[in-house]
This record gives sequence, structure tokens and C-alpha cells, in this order.
Amino acid sequence: MTPKKVNFKEKFNKFSEHWTPKVIAEMNDYEFKLVKIKNDFVWHHHESTDETFVVLEGCMSIEFETETVELAEGEMLVVPKGTKHRPFAENEAKIMIIEPKETLNTGNTKGKLTAPNNEWV
Amino acid sequence: MTPKKVNFKEKFNKFSEHWTPKVIAEMNDYEFKLVKIKNDFVWHHHESTDETFVVLEGCMSIEFETETVELAEGEMLVVPKGTKHRPFAENEAKIMIIEPKETLNTGNTKGKLTAPNNEWV
Repeated sequence: MTPKKVNFKEKFNKFSEHWTPKVIAEMNDYEFKLVKIKNDFVWHHHESTDETFVVLEGCMSIEFETETVELAEGEMLVVPKGTKHRPFAENEAKIMIIEPKETLNTGNTKGKLTAPNNEWV
Repeated sequence: MTPKKVNFKEKFNKFSEHWTPKVIAEMNDYEFKLVKIKNDFVWHHHESTDETFVVLEGCMSIEFETETVELAEGEMLVVPKGTKHRPFAENEAKIMIIEPKETLNTGNTKGKLTAPNNEWV
């Protein structure tokens, strides 16, 4: 069977919630997830994996203990495993996250922003 | 140390060759590579890994045994491991490839389009 392509805009049109990662593709034991983000997320870290952020539309920031990094469309950043970080976006931004399957969005913390895994769009 | 972001356009401005993947980031044992592509690549497959293509600028095609898939800016496709494919682009396209470190661009075939690994930009 021929592999199917994924169009980011089409997928983003299928949901509107913030901070709820939607899986769009898998590669070996990794997943590509689209997320709409707005306002503040929680401080957290991922104990056993790096995590990649790619900004597809808009701007976001990632606060680290030492510094805050601003990311615009066409920019990416890999958060090394174990590194505390807090993503936020003043206005809605559309981003892609790449990380191993079963990685929880809030990492070591659980709360009202913890989203279910394996939600495909 | 605060993780550094990567700007795709800045990185693409640093090289002009076609079909020579340049590493821009690593996530666990995977790499993100930028590639400028034009004209035909070779038929090949990757024995032990899936391979992800994301189109950042322009259009490309990937020929499979059954069908050819066209990818435009804002689209991605994961080629499952073992799947024969041949990427090509009529006009120059700028793409990102995500795959495990040490994955050879020409997979199971070696020839004049085989590019060295671990070239960072």
C-alpha cells in the first residue's frame, strides 16, 4: 500500500482545543503530534526522552530555568531529557511535537492539562 | 545550558548543494536533517527504519512501486521501513528529513548520490 501524506493545515482544521496533542503520523516508535497552544502550560520535564518542538504557525515561547526562548514559524528546538521547561503562547500558535510514543504532555507532573495519548486526527 | 533553537531559513542559507543532508538537530538517537533537492534521486529503501519527509519550501514527489505521491509545502510523509521509494523534484525544494542517526541517504544502494553522514550546518 502506498504511504499516505499528511497536510498540516487540513489536520489543524479538524480540532480547536488547546494543549491536546493529536497524533498525525508515526515513525518507528516515535509519533508526530499537532498541537494548538495558547496561554500558559505547566512546568515539567520528561525523565527519559528529548522532545522536539516545531512551530508551524504563529509564535511560542519556552521558558527554561535560565532563560526563555522565543520560537517563530519556521523554527524548532529540542528540549533535552530531564530539562525543566514551560511552553506558553500569548496568541494561539500551531506547533508540531515529535517524541516517543506514550510520552505524556505534562511529563513528570499530572494535572488538568494532562492530555490523553493516542488521540489521532 | 539553555537549549538553542534552529531557524530553517538561516540554515538553508548556509549551503547550496542538492541531495546532501545537513544535520541541524538531534533528538535521542534520531537526527533532523535539511536537504535541498532537485531532479532525480535513486530508487532505494531503508532496511531497518522508517524515514520521514517534511516539505518546508517548494514541491517534491516520492515515487513508490504502486503510485507517486506529490508533497507540497506544509505536508509530510513517513516512508515505512523496507519500502522502495524514489524522491524527485522538478524545481528545487527544501525539505527536512527525520530518521535515526547513521541512516544513509541512499539506503541499500551506494553510488554517486550517496552523501556523507554527520555533516552539520
